[in-house]
Amino acid sequence: MSKEAPGTFVITARDETSRARAGVLRTAHGPVETPVFMPVGTQATVKALEPRDLRENGASIILSNTYHLMLRPGADVVANAGGLHSFMNWDGPILTDSGGFQVFSLAKLRKLTPEGCAFNSHIDGREVFLGPKESMEVQRLLGSDIAMVFDECLPWPCDRARAEKSVAQTLDWAKMSQDAPHAPGQLVFGIVQGGIYDDIRRHCAEELSSMDFPGYAIGGVSVGEPEEAMYQAVEASVPYLPEEKPRYVMGLGVMTQMAECVARGVDMFDCVLPTRIARHGTALTRHGNVAIKAAKWERDLGPVEEGCDCYCCRNFTRSYVRHLLHAGEILGVRLLTIHNVHRLLEFMRELRVSIADGTFAAFREQLHKDQQQKETT
Amino acid sequence: MSKEAPGTFVITARDETSRARAGVLRTAHGPVETPVFMPVGTQATVKALEPRDLRENGASIILSNTYHLMLRPGADVVANAGGLHSFMNWDGPILTDSGGFQVFSLAKLRKLTPEGCAFNSHIDGREVFLGPKESMEVQRLLGSDIAMVFDECLPWPCDRARAEKSVAQTLDWAKMSQDAPHAPGQLVFGIVQGGIYDDIRRHCAEELSSMDFPGYAIGGVSVGEPEEAMYQAVEASVPYLPEEKPRYVMGLGVMTQMAECVARGVDMFDCVLPTRIARHGTALTRHGNVAIKAAKWERDLGPVEEGCDCYCCRNFTRSYVRHLLHAGEILGVRLLTIHNVHRLLEFMRELRVSIADGTFAAFREQLHKDQQQKETT
Repeated sequence: MSKEAPGTFVITARDETSRARAGVLRTAHGPVETPVFMPVGTQATVKALEPRDLRENGASIILSNTYHLMLRPGADVVANAGGLHSFMNWDGPILTDSGGFQVFSLAKLRKLTPEGCAFNSHIDGREVFLGPKESMEVQRLLGSDIAMVFDECLPWPCDRARAEKSVAQTLDWAKMSQDAPHAPGQLVFGIVQGGIYDDIRRHCAEELSSMDFPGYAIGGVSVGEPEEAMYQAVEASVPYLPEEKPRYVMGLGVMTQMAECVARGVDMFDCVLPTRIARHGTALTRHGNVAIKAAKWERDLGPVEEGCDCYCCRNFTRSYVRHLLHAGEILGVRLLTIHNVHRLLEFMRELRVSIADGTFAAFREQLHKDQQQKETT
Repeated sequence: MSKEAPGTFVITARDETSRARAGVLRTAHGPVETPVFMPVGTQATVKALEPRDLRENGASIILSNTYHLMLRPGADVVANAGGLHSFMNWDGPILTDSGGFQVFSLAKLRKLTPEGCAFNSHIDGREVFLGPKESMEVQRLLGSDIAMVFDECLPWPCDRARAEKSVAQTLDWAKMSQDAPHAPGQLVFGIVQGGIYDDIRRHCAEELSSMDFPGYAIGGVSVGEPEEAMYQAVEASVPYLPEEKPRYVMGLGVMTQMAECVARGVDMFDCVLPTRIARHGTALTRHGNVAIKAAKWERDLGPVEEGCDCYCCRNFTRSYVRHLLHAGEILGVRLLTIHNVHRLLEFMRELRVSIADGTFAAFREQLHKDQQQKETT
């Protein structure tokens, strides 16, 4: 495999105090420096942002959703435009999830079989079937750079018998997903499940490793469990995954938690957090979350975050952004979204630099101190 | 008065087939080429747009609202930021209306006196008083380049006795508005009222002219009356206003109607139309309005408008914008808003060129043909 071939993952630096590493993952639409945060574009747009905003703020790869796009506008409509990159005019890498998580969390489930799930669409109620074959076909039509295998995301908590049975199903589906047709250059990542049972996670990780995927996600994390259970799930999975492949924790976007996962050997993250809390009026900052709608900012002429060089902070005050949010103006949500996405991408850039510089331990320690000022969102 | 002094209005070209003229109006924040369309930024933002979008798409002046800003965030909050230009980070000219129209159309009116109106805020119900003194004080604090006198906007239809009484009041208020303190370099425009009564409009226009305002609006137009009544109101006012001052029809944004008013000697317009119909999924085009949510665009890979060079049309398809609108994504509204504002500003640029070129008559004729394809919005 050439150094430029999709799936090549080169580790460029390792931290000596932890499992953290920096690297570059090649995809059909360009390289991705890791550790990386992927902004989420559920419905073929990162909410309130344009492709030019993503580029301006340093996004190298985004995530989009199989479940949502298959229901609306339909994979065929996206394929008609030449795939998701052309449809949304984003020429960088895209990762698509398999839809498994959404089927189990958003839809009304009708029937679970070895071939997948029948469910009712949350949009119009019509019955739809989604299994590994259907998910991979949708992801092929979307033409994402990284497709995820179709899996069952276990709830937390979940008993041992249920976890064992589910992981057996997930492993079957992983094989079916791997064997299905893919788009040219499309990478398929496996997903480790197993709930809180370390031995089941180890078994799942080992089985997936033997299937030789170009990357591996650790699933069933950030589904409502305590923070320690999250790190335990990561620690129970990472040692049994190949060292030279990227590892991805799905659905995680809290800075301290991402840093802790990086320290445990994780390379990729995604989360709706920066865009979602912007819509609720909350800014992510170096020193914790800040509720910009609060009365104390009414006449504050400072930027949303001191020292930030995003478009929002370079041009507007807390007083103005607060007014826009209270007045229900789209611009308020948009400016805070720009800031929040910028903040997380800038955080990841600094984290990568710290690994390359050999200063990750200090970076991690400082981060925990800084983020203790966190307010509730 | 120097050629650069605020209020200087130089007519640079005249059409030989009509009263249309092109000119340049100087303001404290730079020149405005007329005829001009002013996008509306009701709450200190043109909905869904940033200042950089306004500049990119050729806006030279925007309008904002005294009524809305005095209620939220409050004129003092805007003044605390150094005025409206700093608050919203727009360094071009701004015109503020007086709040009269909104008090009479949005608020629950409590009491009308020779000093103004007591009303209940449409936001929180609290009682507020607004008259010429209060309106001019708010506009002084906002620091707009052009302030409008406080007037009573008559409904349509309206009987003669009511119109006569109201115009007497409006003339008193115009004088009180003129005599009130203003921001440095702030121009104050008078407003001609009089409903459908030509002689009352003439009287109002002559009285205002004798007060020597740097510009004059024709009010009570575009308030639900038939198109012919609108042109009649303009024709009944323009001949009695000074030739060398700008004339402004408030609340008008339909291309054919603006062209007809330009032909009758009008120089300035504002309207929420381009931003409002974008939020309803309608595109303004050279060939009429287009409902982008319509099923026929589901797989259409053309731009919202062929030949348009706005950011939306350069980068996205009808299929994609339609999807965003159906999915309720902010980006859909934003892209259509960019297109619609671009279209109206580009229309006005072409109209100005046609006056300078001596081709306004042909431009006007072609416009009516092109816009006959208009769909309902």
